[in-house]
Amino acid sequence: MTAERYRRLRQVLECRQPDLTIVTDNVHKSRNLSAIVRTADAAGIGTMYCAMPDKDYKAFRGTAMGSHTWVAVRRQPDVTAALTPLKAQGYQVLATHLASDSVDYREADYTRPTVILLGAEKLGVSEAGCVLADAHITIPMRGMVQSFNVSVAAGIILAEAERQRQNAGMYSQRRIDDASYQRILFEWAQP
Amino acid sequence: MTAERYRRLRQVLECRQPDLTIVTDNVHKSRNLSAIVRTADAAGIGTMYCAMPDKDYKAFRGTAMGSHTWVAVRRQPDVTAALTPLKAQGYQVLATHLASDSVDYREADYTRPTVILLGAEKLGVSEAGCVLADAHITIPMRGMVQSFNVSVAAGIILAEAERQRQNAGMYSQRRIDDASYQRILFEWAQP
Ligand SMILES: C[S@@+](CC[C@H](N)C(=O)[O-])C[C@H]1O[C@@H](n2cnc3c(N)ncnc32)[C@H](O)[C@@H]1O
Ligand SMILES: C[S@@+](CC[C@H](N)C(=O)[O-])C[C@H]1O[C@@H](n2cnc3c(N)ncnc32)[C@H](O)[C@@H]1O
Repeated sequence: MTAERYRRLRQVLECRQPDLTIVTDNVHKSRNLSAIVRTADAAGIGTMYCAMPDKDYKAFRGTAMGSHTWVAVRRQPDVTAALTPLKAQGYQVLATHLASDSVDYREADYTRPTVILLGAEKLGVSEAGCVLADAHITIPMRGMVQSFNVSVAAGIILAEAERQRQNAGMYSQRRIDDASYQRILFEWAQP
Repeated sequence: MTAERYRRLRQVLECRQPDLTIVTDNVHKSRNLSAIVRTADAAGIGTMYCAMPDKDYKAFRGTAMGSHTWVAVRRQPDVTAALTPLKAQGYQVLATHLASDSVDYREADYTRPTVILLGAEKLGVSEAGCVLADAHITIPMRGMVQSFNVSVAAGIILAEAERQRQNAGMYSQRRIDDASYQRILFEWAQP
């Protein structure tokens, strides 16, 4: 490990956002999940959750790329198991949902502890996910197609979260606690 | 064709942005190109250009999904052939490039006639593409991974273009000329 590399690991940890995360609600295509993990890393997300069957998760881990080294991806059997502990910790759940009562995604406040709930490729966010949501957000679409690819939608929403958190100075001071910082730095610095 | 469907076709054409487009610089994976076409449609792009070998383009057309009905995708043999006529028409070329002289993508003015130049999965924007660019734009990344998936990057940049054009009222009045409007409406309304 070069000094430069070590400096970079520390710099990235200084930007991690312990109160911003993603829950995927039965997103099952490995390439979509991989693109979401990569995008999560870029926004400073350190841990995310995939509600999906164990079989699909194993297939996903089999194809996993580099970004999985940097983001902890935790499987949960369903969306209720994934969201309940986060809600108990005070996270707001923003379901990405093309419903009539959805608000423009730029109206949400992403500086609060936030879960972005992403839906399955065909079915979108499940009924159970919608019930647990605090708000429904949607990205406006001006064309004939009715939805974005899920990883593209994740990128657009996380870019807005990043913008708000940057404006609030949330990338300019360390946000994870000392114990987590030391533990993750140790893990990452392993040869 | 129901009256509702016909109304929707017209509504989408009212939002089309004839002075916003994408050029892909040897992006070769069909699933990335498909996601880019879908995202282009959502931002109101009616025509985009893929600089790529004919063989790869044929493979892409073979897998093409619904969004190709709505966005005209034109192949060009290389990025110079794609960009030169657009530059002659006064388009600015924004290369999406992770260079040291790149500016934050939110600093660009997307209300001007604009080409967003997207680079290949492995190699990024080519030398020829960089030379023809008026500016280099980059999406900030806070993590360990060095780049986004190209379709995710396209989504993030087009969402900013959409935001600026919405604020400028560019989706509130028809922007394509009568002849194009009538021609495309006729094509779309074919059974
Ligand atoms: C292909 S879409 C699912 C479409 C599904 N038919 C539906 O009605 O929800 C997959 C996921 O991408 C995200 N997504 C796609 N387009 C979106 C949009 N315009 N706004 C917000 N999220 C979107 C959501 O998480 C969605 O569940
Ligand atoms: C996987 S990246 C290419 C990475 C390549 N190694 C490079 O250095 O350019 C594929 C394309 O996605 C777009 N892209 C990815 N990350 C980006 C970022 N942070 N800012 C702007 N564009 C990006 C660019 O069009 C890029 O050419």
